[in-house]
Amino acid sequence: MENFIAYNPTKLHFGKDVMDGLGSALKEFGSRVLLVYGGGSIKRNGIYEKTIHQLKSINAEVFEYSGIKPNPIIEDVDNATELGRKNKVDVILAVGGGSVIDSAKIISITIPVSHTGWDFYSGKAQPEKAIPLISVLTIAATGTEMNPFAVIQNKKTQQKLGYGHDLIYNKHSFLDPQNTFTVPRDYTAYGIADLVAHCHEAYFGEGNASLSDRLVFSINKEAIDYGKDLLENLDNYDLRAKIMYAATMALNKSTMPGRVSGDWGVHSIGHILSLLYDTPHGASLTIVIPAWLKFHKEIIPERIAFLGKNIFGVNTADETITAFENFFRSIDCPIRLRDISAGNESKKEILKLMNLNKVSGVNHKLTDQDRAEILNLFY
Amino acid sequence: MENFIAYNPTKLHFGKDVMDGLGSALKEFGSRVLLVYGGGSIKRNGIYEKTIHQLKSINAEVFEYSGIKPNPIIEDVDNATELGRKNKVDVILAVGGGSVIDSAKIISITIPVSHTGWDFYSGKAQPEKAIPLISVLTIAATGTEMNPFAVIQNKKTQQKLGYGHDLIYNKHSFLDPQNTFTVPRDYTAYGIADLVAHCHEAYFGEGNASLSDRLVFSINKEAIDYGKDLLENLDNYDLRAKIMYAATMALNKSTMPGRVSGDWGVHSIGHILSLLYDTPHGASLTIVIPAWLKFHKEIIPERIAFLGKNIFGVNTADETITAFENFFRSIDCPIRLRDISAGNESKKEILKLMNLNKVSGVNHKLTDQDRAEILNLFY
Repeated sequence: MENFIAYNPTKLHFGKDVMDGLGSALKEFGSRVLLVYGGGSIKRNGIYEKTIHQLKSINAEVFEYSGIKPNPIIEDVDNATELGRKNKVDVILAVGGGSVIDSAKIISITIPVSHTGWDFYSGKAQPEKAIPLISVLTIAATGTEMNPFAVIQNKKTQQKLGYGHDLIYNKHSFLDPQNTFTVPRDYTAYGIADLVAHCHEAYFGEGNASLSDRLVFSINKEAIDYGKDLLENLDNYDLRAKIMYAATMALNKSTMPGRVSGDWGVHSIGHILSLLYDTPHGASLTIVIPAWLKFHKEIIPERIAFLGKNIFGVNTADETITAFENFFRSIDCPIRLRDISAGNESKKEILKLMNLNKVSGVNHKLTDQDRAEILNLFY
Repeated sequence: MENFIAYNPTKLHFGKDVMDGLGSALKEFGSRVLLVYGGGSIKRNGIYEKTIHQLKSINAEVFEYSGIKPNPIIEDVDNATELGRKNKVDVILAVGGGSVIDSAKIISITIPVSHTGWDFYSGKAQPEKAIPLISVLTIAATGTEMNPFAVIQNKKTQQKLGYGHDLIYNKHSFLDPQNTFTVPRDYTAYGIADLVAHCHEAYFGEGNASLSDRLVFSINKEAIDYGKDLLENLDNYDLRAKIMYAATMALNKSTMPGRVSGDWGVHSIGHILSLLYDTPHGASLTIVIPAWLKFHKEIIPERIAFLGKNIFGVNTADETITAFENFFRSIDCPIRLRDISAGNESKKEILKLMNLNKVSGVNHKLTDQDRAEILNLFY
C-alpha cells in the first residue's frame, strides 16, 4: 500500500430537485455569473429554464457563453475566458456534461492570469487561483463533477490532453438524475462505458491497494448489474441515479488510495479515435479496452483474471475479456473499429497519430511496436 | 436511492512518515498551538518526540493539555478549552486516538463561544466557527480523523452522546500506520470491531443504496480478510495500513450516500456498557451486534442474509450471525456479557440505564420491551 493524500473539497448535491439549492450556492460567491453551456439541448429539456429561474431568484447578472462542443476545444475556453475577464465575473456556472464542465474548469483558472487556456496544458503557466466554479451535471459519464481533472482538445497541435490541479475542483456540483432522463440511449451507454473505463484505469495503475480494488469492483458491478436495464428504461429514476452516482465515484479519486497512479493507456489511445473520427469518448473506449486486455493478457494474466472473477464471476483472463466484450455489446457499444465504420485504410493514420502523441499508460508503458499490436486488435 | 449531500473537506495524509509534513500544515493556520493528547503513551512510543520536532521546526508556541481518557469526559474538554481560550491559540493539534480527537473537535468549537462543551450536546449552543484542527491518529478504530462526529461522556448526567457538525471536520489528518505498531493486541482487535460496527450502522440504516451497500461489504471484507492476520503480526506495515484505511472509510460517510440515515442502535446500546463498566468501546460492540442481529432476524431476515452472503459467503440470517460470532471470537473479542465478567446481577442496572437513555436505532426503533429482549441475548 503506497502513501497517498485523500482530499476532495467538492460539495455534491445529489437527488431529486437539488437544483432548488443552486441560487443560494451561487450567492456565496457573488452575483456576476458566467454561465457556460453547450449546444442548446438544455433549452429543449427545461434545464436552462430552471437554471435561469435560480439565477433570477438571486438577482444575478448573467453573462452567457454557449456552444461548447462534445469534444471540447481550446478556442471555446479562450473565448469564454475573455467574456468572463471583461465582465469581472464572481463565479462560473457550468450546465452540461463533461465537455462543458471541463471547459469551465480551465476557464476558471485562465481568467485570473495573463495566459491562454492551453498554456496550462503545455506547461507554460501554473494556476494561481480560480474563479469559484459551480456545476449542474446533465449526463453521467466523466466524473468531472467531483474531480480535479479537465480534458481539452487542441486541433492545431492535434492533441487531446488531460490536466489536473486541486484548484479546479468544483465548489458545488448539482446532480439531479431527472436531468439525465433525456440523454439518448447511445450516449447513456457511452457514459456507462466511460465509468467502466475509469475503473479500468484505476485498477491497472501502479500499486497494491486491496480496498481500492474492491471499490473498483463495486462501481463496475453497478454498471454491469444496472446498465443494460437503464437502456431499456431511460426515464427510470432509480436506475439513472445508480449510474449517475457510480460515474461520479469512478473518477472522484475514491478508487486511488494506496496506488501510485492510474494507468490511462486506454484513454490515451481512445483520444486518438476521437481526434480523428469525432468518435464519442465512451465509444472509443469500448473498442480500446478489449484490445488493451488482449495485448496484456500474457503479461498480467492473473491481474486480469482477478478483475473478471470479482465483477463477472469468471476465472481466466480470456473469459474476462469475453465477458467485457459481451457486456459492451449488451449495451450496444462498439468493440471493433468496423463498428464505427472505420476500415482497414484507417490503420496508417491511427498509428501515425498514436506514435506522434506517444500514447501510453503510466503503469503499463507502450512502445511503438506495442501500439501497432494493440491497433491490430481493433479489427 | 435517497437524496444526499456528499462533502468531506478533510485532507488525509496517509502512509509512511507523513508526519514530516505536519509542521507545514500547522503553519497554514498560525504558530500558537494547543497540543492535546492522552495518557502519555505517545511519550513512550516516540510519537510525542516526532510531534515536538515538527512544532519546533516552525517555532510554534505550544500549550499542552494531556490526560484525555479513553472514554473521553466533558470535564477535560472544558479544561482544555480554558487553556486554549486563555492563550488565544491559532490551531489545535490532537495526537491520539478517537477520544483525543473527539475531545479536540468539541474544544475547537467551544473556544470561540461563551459556552461549555456539553452545551452543544444538550442543544443549548450552536457552533459559530471552529479553531482549525489538525490530528495525528495513533489507533485505527473510530474514523473520527475524517468525519464530523464526536462522542463524549458526561458522568454527571450518565450520558454518552454523539455530536455532528460540518465545522468539526479536521483540516488535516496524518495517518502513519507505523504509529499504530505499538497498539496492543486487544485494542487492535477492538478497533477492528469498531470499524465492523460502523459498517453495520450504515448497512442497517434507512434507504436503499446499492453502491453504498457494496462499499459496506468492501470495507467489512478488509476487516475479515486481514484482521486476524494483523493480530498475529502487529508490526506488519501493510496489514496495519489496510486496517487503518478501512477504519477511516468505515465512518467518513463513504457508506452513506443514498441512505436517509444510519441506524446507530448497536452503538447506543454499547455506550451503556462503557458507561457502567468502562468496557472498551469496540469490546462493547461485539457483545451487542450478535444480540441485535438475533433480535432482528425474524424482522429483517433477508437484509441480514444479504450481508452475510456478501461478506462471509453464507446464505441465511442465522448463518450470518454465527459467522459474525466466529469472526469476533477469532479476533478475541467478547460476544457475551460473561466475557467481560459482568454476571446476571448486572441485568437490572443495564436495563435501567438503557431505558433512561432511551437507547434505540434511528431506523430500527427499540421499545422498552425490545431492549429487555436484546439484553437477554447478551447472556
